[in-house]
Order: sequence, then C-alpha cells, then structure tokens
Amino acid sequence: MYNLLKGKKGIIFGALDENSIAWKTAERVHEEGGTFVLTNAPIAMRMGQIKALAEKTGSEIVPADATNLDDLQNLVEKSMEILGGKIDFVLHSIGMSVNVRKGKHYTEQNYDFTTKGWDVSAVSFHKVMQTLHKNDAMNEWGSIVALTYMAAQRTFPDYNDMADNKAYLESIARSFGYFYGKDKKVRVNTISQSPTPTTAGQGVKGFDGFIAYADMMSPLGNASAAECADYTITLFSDLTKKVTMQNLYHDGGFSNTGVSNEVMEKFMK
Amino acid sequence: MYNLLKGKKGIIFGALDENSIAWKTAERVHEEGGTFVLTNAPIAMRMGQIKALAEKTGSEIVPADATNLDDLQNLVEKSMEILGGKIDFVLHSIGMSVNVRKGKHYTEQNYDFTTKGWDVSAVSFHKVMQTLHKNDAMNEWGSIVALTYMAAQRTFPDYNDMADNKAYLESIARSFGYFYGKDKKVRVNTISQSPTPTTAGQGVKGFDGFIAYADMMSPLGNASAAECADYTITLFSDLTKKVTMQNLYHDGGFSNTGVSNEVMEKFMK
Amino acid sequence: MYNLLKGKKGIIFGALDENSIAWKTAERVHEEGGTFVLTNAPIAMRMGQIKALAEKTGSEIVPADATNLDDLQNLVEKSMEILGGKIDFVLHSIGMSVNVRKGKHYTEQNYDFTTKGWDVSAVSFHKVMQTLHKNDAMNEWGSIVALTYMAAQRTFPDYNDMADNKAYLESIARSFGYFYGKDKKVRVNTISQSPTPTTAGQGVKGFDGFIAYADMMSPLGNASAAECADYTITLFSDLTKKVTMQNLYHDGGFSNTGVSNEVMEKFMK
Amino acid sequence: MYNLLKGKKGIIFGALDENSIAWKTAERVHEEGGTFVLTNAPIAMRMGQIKALAEKTGSEIVPADATNLDDLQNLVEKSMEILGGKIDFVLHSIGMSVNVRKGKHYTEQNYDFTTKGWDVSAVSFHKVMQTLHKNDAMNEWGSIVALTYMAAQRTFPDYNDMADNKAYLESIARSFGYFYGKDKKVRVNTISQSPTPTTAGQGVKGFDGFIAYADMMSPLGNASAAECADYTITLFSDLTKKVTMQNLYHDGGFSNTGVSNEVMEKFMK
Repeated sequence: MYNLLKGKKGIIFGALDENSIAWKTAERVHEEGGTFVLTNAPIAMRMGQIKALAEKTGSEIVPADATNLDDLQNLVEKSMEILGGKIDFVLHSIGMSVNVRKGKHYTEQNYDFTTKGWDVSAVSFHKVMQTLHKNDAMNEWGSIVALTYMAAQRTFPDYNDMADNKAYLESIARSFGYFYGKDKKVRVNTISQSPTPTTAGQGVKGFDGFIAYADMMSPLGNASAAECADYTITLFSDLTKKVTMQNLYHDGGFSNTGVSNEVMEKFMK
Repeated sequence: MYNLLKGKKGIIFGALDENSIAWKTAERVHEEGGTFVLTNAPIAMRMGQIKALAEKTGSEIVPADATNLDDLQNLVEKSMEILGGKIDFVLHSIGMSVNVRKGKHYTEQNYDFTTKGWDVSAVSFHKVMQTLHKNDAMNEWGSIVALTYMAAQRTFPDYNDMADNKAYLESIARSFGYFYGKDKKVRVNTISQSPTPTTAGQGVKGFDGFIAYADMMSPLGNASAAECADYTITLFSDLTKKVTMQNLYHDGGFSNTGVSNEVMEKFMK
Repeated sequence: MYNLLKGKKGIIFGALDENSIAWKTAERVHEEGGTFVLTNAPIAMRMGQIKALAEKTGSEIVPADATNLDDLQNLVEKSMEILGGKIDFVLHSIGMSVNVRKGKHYTEQNYDFTTKGWDVSAVSFHKVMQTLHKNDAMNEWGSIVALTYMAAQRTFPDYNDMADNKAYLESIARSFGYFYGKDKKVRVNTISQSPTPTTAGQGVKGFDGFIAYADMMSPLGNASAAECADYTITLFSDLTKKVTMQNLYHDGGFSNTGVSNEVMEKFMK
Repeated sequence: MYNLLKGKKGIIFGALDENSIAWKTAERVHEEGGTFVLTNAPIAMRMGQIKALAEKTGSEIVPADATNLDDLQNLVEKSMEILGGKIDFVLHSIGMSVNVRKGKHYTEQNYDFTTKGWDVSAVSFHKVMQTLHKNDAMNEWGSIVALTYMAAQRTFPDYNDMADNKAYLESIARSFGYFYGKDKKVRVNTISQSPTPTTAGQGVKGFDGFIAYADMMSPLGNASAAECADYTITLFSDLTKKVTMQNLYHDGGFSNTGVSNEVMEKFMK
C-alpha cells in the first residue's frame, strides 16, 4: 500500500495458518514490496497451507527447526541465495510450552518439558541471531522483531512457564540488540501483543474468556493479528532506525490500564 | 515518500527553527501527504523562520499560548476551519523550565518558576487535549504525540525540574489516553527521545558533553531530530492504531543499556 | 517491639485520624523507640483526635500547611528544638485533589483546582525536602518516605488527576533523592500502597468496590494501614541504608498480577 | 541486634566464603534470632570454611545440588527434621555462567553451556520452590528471596548470558509468587543488588573497574554484602508481609540514576 519495504529482504518464522500473526505479516510485507523466505519447523508445518501463502506472496519455503543450529545455518545460506543478498528483516513468532500442552501446573512442572519449551520459545531467538551474526547475514540498519506477551512482566496464571520464557526472550532482545547494534547497526525489538486468537493461542486454558477480559480492559480494544502485522511493518521500515532493545506494547492500552470502568461494572454486579 | 499520511489533518506545536524536532516533523508530514496548522506561543515565535516553514509546507500559522484556554479554543476552531474538518494528528513539542533558565538549582527552586514551567511543559498537554475533546475535534483513530525525555524515569542532575514535568506529562498521556481511547478511539503516546541539539536543548548546562556521552552509551548512537520526525510519522499513520498510553523510547538503545564498552573504556583511562 | 528506631527523631505529616496510615505509623514508630513531631495542615487538623495521638506517643504537634514555606521553616526549626537535634526520618502522607472533591471529570478539569491539588499532593514533598536541605536539618543516613499509588503507572479512571500528581511526587523522590544522597547520605523513597480505607480515600467514587477488586487481584490480599506502618518502619531503620530513589510496591502483589483466577471467575459468570 | 527473626527457621543457599552475601546473611540471621540449615552444591562447597560458619551460627550443613530434585527433596526433609518444623525463610544466592567461565562471547554461545548456566542460575530457584511447595514445607507468611542483578533490565556487555538467566529468575519470582501467595501466604521477591566483590563476582571481566563505575553512579555508593544481609533481614521479618512478586533494587540509587555528576566529570576529561 505504501511501498514501505520496497527492496527489502527477510525471513519470516512461524506462519502456521491464516490466523497466525506471522501469516498476516507475510501478506503485509508482500503488499509493501518486501521479499522473504518463509520458514517453520518441519513438524509444525501444514504444507498445504504454507504453500498457499508462498504462492500468494511469491516466496519460497525453507523448513527449519529453530532450535537446530544446522537447520538455521542452512536456512540463512539458502535465504541469501534465494533472495540474492543479505537480510533486512526477520520475524520470530515461535512459542510453545510442553507443560501447558501436557496440562502440568506451573508449580508442578516437568523440567524436561520446561527445558524443551524454553529452547523452542526463547533460546531459538538467540540461535537465529547468532547464526545470522556468524554469517554476517544482516544488512546495516536491518530490523529483527520477536513476538512476546505481557506475562513476562505480570502474572497471568494460565500462561504458565511461557511467562518465564517470554521474560528470557525479551532479555535476549536487549542483550543481543546491544551487540548487533554496535557491530552492524542492526536493531532488535519485541512486540508485546494483545492476546490473539491464533491457532497456537487456543492451547491456553480459558483463552476465549481471557480475550474478552483483555478486550474490556483495553481502551482501544485488543489488537488483532492484522493490526500486529501493520505495526511490525513500521518496525521493519526505515522510519524506525533508532528504536532498539525495546519491548513495545501493542495492546490497545491494556498494559497501562489499572482497571477499566467496564471491568469494574461487570465486577460489581 | 510513502504517502503514509495522505488526507490526514493535524496541528503541530513547537516548530521554533530548523533544529526543532517539530520543524522536521512538519517537513516530513508534508512529504507524506498530510496537511496541518503550525502553532507556537506568540512570545516564542520567530516569525521570519516559521513563515518560511509555512510557505514550504503550504501551512497556515495560528499563534497560541498553549497554557491559555482561550488561545487553544481559537486554535482548535481555526484549525478545523482551515483544514476543512476534524483533526487526525497532533504533535506537542513544548517544554521550558524557568528554574533552569534562571540558574536555580533543583534543591533551591523558586516555586513560582516551578509552577510556570510545569504549566508550560506538562499541563499544556492536558489543556490541548481537553480543548480538542470538548470540541469533539478529533477524528476516530486519530493520534496525539508528545515529546519527552528519559529523565522522567532516571535522574540526570542538570535536567532539573524538567524531569518532574516530563513525569507529569507522561502520566497525562496515560490518563487522558484512557478516556480518549474509550470515547473516541484516539490514541495518545509520548516519544522519549535522545538528547537532541535543538535550540531549546542548548539551555541545559553541559549539554554538548552530555550529548556525546549519550551517543557513546547508545548502541545505535543518538537519534537525530530528523529520525524522530520519521518515527513520529509512523505513530500518526494508520499502521499503529492499537498503540496507546505508551512511552516509546527513541534513543538508539540508551534506555536499556546499563553501560557500554566505550563508556567503560573511556572511564577506565 | 524490636527497638528498631531507638534514638531516632522524625517528623510525621498527615495523621488525620486513627484510620490514617500516618497515624498507624506514628504508633509503630513510638513502639520502636523513635520520637517525633506530628504535623498537619491547620485546616485539616482534627485537634481532639491528633491530641490523643500526641499524648499516647509523647509527641508534640506543630501545625503546618505543607505548601507554605514559612510554615515549613517554622516546623523544621521547632522540630529540631523539640527533639533536641537533627531529623532521622520523615513521613509525607499528604494528598488531595480538588477536581475529585468538586466532581470534575478528568477530561473536564478546572485548572485552578488542578494546580491546587498538585501543590498540596506533590510539590509539598519538594517544599518539605528543600526546607530540610536548606536548614541542613537531616542526619546522615536519614530516611524520607512519601506515600503514593500505582495510578502513577497505570490508569484507574476514578483516580483522576491524583494519578498525575503521584507521578510528579515519585519523580521528586528520584530527583531530590539523587541530590540528598550525594550531599548528605539521605535516602528518599515512595511506598506504593494498596488502596486503603482511610478517611481521605473515601472521597474517591466507588472506592469500596475498588478495594474489593484490588483485594481479589492481590495474591496476598490488600495491604492494610497497619501493615504499611510496619513496612515504613523498615525503611526508617538502619537496615535499609542503601535503598534510595525507589518506588516500592506494598500491595500484596497486585502490581505484578495481570489477572487473578478469582477475578477471571467472577468475570466469567 | 533486634530479635527480628526470633523463632524463625530457614534454609540458606550459596554461602561460599566470608565474602558471600549468603554468608553475611547467615551471620545476620543468627544475630537476629533465626535458625537455619546451610546448603551448597557439593562441588562448590569449601568444607573448611562453611563448617566454620556452621559452628559460629549453630547450624547444620546439608549439601545439595540445587538443580537436582532428589537432593532438594532430601534437603527439605532434613531441614524440617533438624529445625523441628516448617520453614519461614529461604535465601537463594546461586548463579554461574559456563559461557562466562569458558570465555565465550554473548554472540558466540555454546548452547550446552547456556543450558547448564540457566539451570543452575534460574531454574534452580523454581526447583527449590516446587520442592518446598510439594512438601508443604513453608509456614504461612513465610518469605523467599533470591538475589539478582539489574542486567536483567539493561545490558551490561560483560554480564553475558547471566542477564538472560536473571530475567528468567525474576520472572519465576513473580510467577511462583502468585501461586505461593494464593495457596500458602508465602511471599517471593528478588533483591537486585549492587555489583558486589564476592568470590563469584570475580569471574566477570573488568569487574573491579565496573564496581568503581557503579559506585560513582550511585548517589549513596554501592551497597555492600553486609548491607544486603541487613536488607534481606527486613524481607524475612514480619514487617514486610505484603511485599511480594517484587524486584527490589538495593543499589544506592544506581538503577534510577541516568548519569551522575561524577561520571560526567570523569567522562569530560
């Protein structure tokens, strides 16, 4: 619509189906003139669907388990080949808690599950950046974004160990952002998004009720996946070159609302 | 360059001269297809210069003391007349400490000076929004931005009572943002900008040395006035509709850097 | 009970009646071996009641309007006379919004009311410290505490302009704390207390319902006035000498709870 | 000195030698009337030294690798036996980065090292609490404290992956604190301490210079290990019952100082 990303090349992790934020972002990046490689874990990919997205956006798919360094090395090499040069933008939209999936309460974790979820949801972000950095694969003033959630700051009881994973993820953004900024003028940020009815989000208990609550707490209402894609576009564009190491709330104002009149009213009944 | 603000109408406070962030923002808004009224306090206006900006951007000038409700009422009425409709964006770039100007130390304030500085630097933001709100002068999904500085969170000794004024200003953004969001889908945010060598900034003691320090602490270096204008454009655009009540650091990463290697090295000598 | 404040001398602002946090703090300071002067605005004093507190705690009363520099000068001089030396601790528990009292909505403020409330609720804290500082009235490693509320960080719609006042107050704690620390080893902090059913708090609309909500959001329940007094004792004691320029949440965990199961359940009905 | 912990029983992790914060805390807890079990990893224990501490404080030692659930189960059982009842306080002072030890740069991590450091420095805190919770080993209004560092919020380049570990640790304090508060009225907090010249801290490159820098940035100077012990005592006492899920800066004001005059002066030379 605005040609904001004309000529820019990127990698988009985590487009599962059309409800995914990564999916919407891929569509919007394409509209804004950017080109990219789509990637997802082989085990998570729904090939029929992601192929449709690839066709629609003229993209290629390079499967990669984001916890596997060989896969990531292959992904970075192939992406530069396919796109014909270094990378300008990366979206990390990956998260999964085995404890949540298996119904383990936060206070009764299985630590093998904890470790697996941490590796997938948080360390994968470091691995992606370390691989890009080692290969000198980012252009100067490139932009890397990961999606996160406010549970990293405040406890939402059903969010379980994903809260701790997101806190680690956000810390990686600051830590790696420092070095990538100094070395290569690359910026690294996280977007702390409203609860979003993606397919992944469905796994969390009581998610629909929670989405309604968040909507009522947010003066502008919850941010949708499509709106998150719009916001991500601005962070990939050349208009935000000096924003780095930040955690940016995209949530209709929930994060700075103590309570809304609507919640108090409903609560008083 | 991108037509990001095509058809959008606004009011820009605080364009003093070509070093001003508001000046750069006016130029960028014009390039992006937005139209606006320029305003400044009669006492602060350098008519020769602001007229040049008005001509360059096809804008009209409506003088207003932002602490004076009659002036603001006139400004809002005239702006809607001139622009032919309601307002989509507002930039508040106003700040002044009489204590700083008169060389009063933070611990030896003259409270008349304190009150005047608070009114100009902080309450004016509330007055602007209250006037807009009373006149139902904002379009839905409009965007209001004020400029602030990290001294609202951490003490920079020479910033004096401006620190407290900025804390009040940021609180207004949250408080009014809640109501403006609920009522009219208008978002309100502050940008916490790197120290910027504007004409206004010169008043602060040791400002050049401080700018050098901040630059060395920021992994991407200080953000310039022109870069702040770019960032402001994204907040005025339709791509950031669900960002509200936030204080957004635009500072090359300073805010989340504990210390940089460069500062430590200089410090170790 | 523990002799934590044996030999320490102080000034306590804002003991209105036995529901006041300042009242409870005075009782606890007395139990811990501290001596102090009680003060309040002449207009706010309920002499019968505060005299009872003075008798119970062996204290004298020196009336002072905390916005009046002459009153404060007199208070500081008299306090040192009465107590026989410099001051070790100060409690600032003062707050009042004329806009709230007069039923003015946050978006329809009367700015004379705003200014008065800001002076009473926030600037008074600066005036108290400036007067102490000018008179070199604090002992080294003295401790100054002001009470605040989380509305300074997040919007609670009925809290009105007190939110902005508290943000200014907390900023004063940081700004003055920097200088008082450097100059005299005095620490300055704010306690961000649960909503508390004091006589002053009653003025806020829907306050009872809000207290119930806060209690349900707080994993340990709301903090009471008596518990706040206990906490304040620790900050006056020699055990917290290096805690300064902080805003300390004393709220049963509300501040870091996104939502509680109890609120979600009540909300889901 | 004050009998603040009379009758209270606890477990103290991490007393390595007399420079340790945990060591100082053990001494202070003993002075305040508390009794406790000392524990440390078998591999880290310097038996000669910790035995001296045990004798001095009348304590027993139960070795435990805090990443090993069997060891922790044994520790909790033995501690209740030895102390004759449930636990009132716990200090977690454990941290170690293999990447730091092996000289791996933050952008060139060995992920086996990363995982090991995360398990020791962060997950161990969850394991300790999960074991206590499972055994219903804490008394109501008990208090659990872990030590952390501000690198969890802002990047200090040489702190490496400990920054991310500390962010995870602080998130555990919030997440577990929610449940432990609801279930058992137990509070959980972290103390974010000044850089402290402990034996463990020596491992970090340029640590002495950094301690000097931090001292110059802190209006009250760095907090010492002994002062940290004092502060921890207040958090274990009954005077702070409603403080939970907080990260509490104990740092002489560094965390809220943007820059100090002393640093600017040194920097300007």
